[in-house]
Amino acid sequence: MSSGTELAEAAEYTMNGGDSTYSYHKNSRFQRAATDVAKATIEKAIMEKLDIRRFSPAPTTFQIADLGCSVGPNTFVAVQNILEAVRRKYVTQGLSSQMPDFLVLFNDHASNDFNTLFASLPPDRQYYAAGVPGSFHGRVFPDASLHVAHSAHALPWLRKLPEELLDANSPAYNKGRVYYISAPSQVLDAYAAQFAKDTAMFLSARGKEVVSGGIMVLLLPGRANGIAHSCVLSDVMFDLLGACLMDMAKEGKTSEALVDSFNAPVYTPSPEEMTAITERNGCFSIETMDLTPFNAKVDGSAAAHACTMHVRAGVEGLIGKHFGSEIVNELFDRFFEKAKESSDRISSAFLHGCQLVVVLKRK
Amino acid sequence: MSSGTELAEAAEYTMNGGDSTYSYHKNSRFQRAATDVAKATIEKAIMEKLDIRRFSPAPTTFQIADLGCSVGPNTFVAVQNILEAVRRKYVTQGLSSQMPDFLVLFNDHASNDFNTLFASLPPDRQYYAAGVPGSFHGRVFPDASLHVAHSAHALPWLRKLPEELLDANSPAYNKGRVYYISAPSQVLDAYAAQFAKDTAMFLSARGKEVVSGGIMVLLLPGRANGIAHSCVLSDVMFDLLGACLMDMAKEGKTSEALVDSFNAPVYTPSPEEMTAITERNGCFSIETMDLTPFNAKVDGSAAAHACTMHVRAGVEGLIGKHFGSEIVNELFDRFFEKAKESSDRISSAFLHGCQLVVVLKRK
Repeated sequence: MSSGTELAEAAEYTMNGGDSTYSYHKNSRFQRAATDVAKATIEKAIMEKLDIRRFSPAPTTFQIADLGCSVGPNTFVAVQNILEAVRRKYVTQGLSSQMPDFLVLFNDHASNDFNTLFASLPPDRQYYAAGVPGSFHGRVFPDASLHVAHSAHALPWLRKLPEELLDANSPAYNKGRVYYISAPSQVLDAYAAQFAKDTAMFLSARGKEVVSGGIMVLLLPGRANGIAHSCVLSDVMFDLLGACLMDMAKEGKTSEALVDSFNAPVYTPSPEEMTAITERNGCFSIETMDLTPFNAKVDGSAAAHACTMHVRAGVEGLIGKHFGSEIVNELFDRFFEKAKESSDRISSAFLHGCQLVVVLKRK
Repeated sequence: MSSGTELAEAAEYTMNGGDSTYSYHKNSRFQRAATDVAKATIEKAIMEKLDIRRFSPAPTTFQIADLGCSVGPNTFVAVQNILEAVRRKYVTQGLSSQMPDFLVLFNDHASNDFNTLFASLPPDRQYYAAGVPGSFHGRVFPDASLHVAHSAHALPWLRKLPEELLDANSPAYNKGRVYYISAPSQVLDAYAAQFAKDTAMFLSARGKEVVSGGIMVLLLPGRANGIAHSCVLSDVMFDLLGACLMDMAKEGKTSEALVDSFNAPVYTPSPEEMTAITERNGCFSIETMDLTPFNAKVDGSAAAHACTMHVRAGVEGLIGKHFGSEIVNELFDRFFEKAKESSDRISSAFLHGCQLVVVLKRK
């Protein structure tokens, strides 16, 4: 709606569409595991924090949004969990007679594959469904129209990359890497600042859209306070990706200039960072903020395969656009080999791996 | 949501997606002309019939739905007209301080090309936008959630074809034709009954979804009371299509059995029929029901070309699925020739051509 310069410039990262081998649809097991882990937290948040008696007038339609929904199936699992918890809450609070209709609003960039999403909607769903195209860093819903907002694994994707990463005169110039691991501290600082800015925009927009008493649940790959980024699974994956790209550049299969000008637009925040950003925004109270371990335990080769498919589903589009699609197959073959070689590092990162589950309540 | 057997059986007719030569996107000039004609009617209906003071509580979000929106651009023109008229109404009624946010709900079958629709959303729109997948013959929106509903050129598409058209033992068996023109009266009766049944389902669903005091505007190809279907432009087009298919069957380029088993799922009602269906339903009062002439005046060869592109954009998918896509190019080449040969009939049908604009108000 209000597409100012900030938003107009924003990149639209979309997962691989369709349902083929490398699609996000078929390669989102980490996210699914994470969603399962988050289920109990979401139920508890709705039961204990959602303030349905504060909604005035009592809504005839209860609106649930999933922000950055991609193409499913995880989004369907998540909204079903939310819907069942809300229904139980109405019943246990003696408000069955006021049970509203449910409308689920599936949001993602306009370039998301909504056709696949709509084709996969559960046929026996107990809710009305709508797709809402647009960047969640800006406004996408009317004022005070959401009762529960949910976003899983979308917020870490930066709205845009810090410009200084490409500036040869900046201390944050990220030459020979595609991520902030093994980089000068200024690179990490630039990523962290961009994440903070983007998340602040997200919270400002949701502050207008979520009704007073409504809650928002955010899931994202997390990093314990004080733990280095280089120990975190999602960060390790992008470090390996950069190493593979540099190997290919050295062999002349792509150019170093292309590697220098590419950076993975993802960031892994800590609870301390999320707390500071949320408090600065001021619209939401922090109800809970938990770091929970991954529940997807896999061994060496299987872990390498899972990591490869996970990264490929997430960034194949970006890689193809920047480096040319002809390098994609070889790049991910190399990634798989490198992940196997790095199995100790990956196993350790799995142990440190965790997700941040944040429950916020609109004041 | 409530996908009973009736709906599960329903066919999903979708216009040609994308924006290539034969796309609906580029071949909807008749609909666009019709939308322009309807503009004044819609503005008048909103100014005189929409009962915004009856909405209680005053809506913070004003919801406009376009049912059977296809992929644009006509849907954007139509909803913009509606939105501007509603804003004017708030202002002229001294209710500027209560001006709500606007949410436009674009509805069509789940197989509609929503990706193209979302990519073409006007960037400077003054409304929030959502896509709502599902058959409008059933429920697609929550109870009492729509203030203005609009549907252009979608209602004539039958939810399913009458079974007796394919029954060799029925007097409505439609052998050697693909439409009700030049057919036994039982064929026309079967089509009319199906249209009445489908429209009743449509009205029942909208009766639940449109708020009391809200209005619904329906645009569809119309037929003056007492005028034969064989004089109506849209009907003539399907008659010509059937003749081309029979020619091809006689030359062995398709089979007569395939022609016998195909029927175009479209019907052109009269005001009398629409009045009877609406009164039987009982949810809506009929505010106005006008037959307006087409404003798209074109001569012989241009008319033939326009008719060809119009029919192709609408039914190419259906034809390809039933007869095989390899016949499509030749079929429409023949259609163009036949339309040129029939220029007198087409010119006359243009003169008789008209659209039905129905304004209903939720009681």
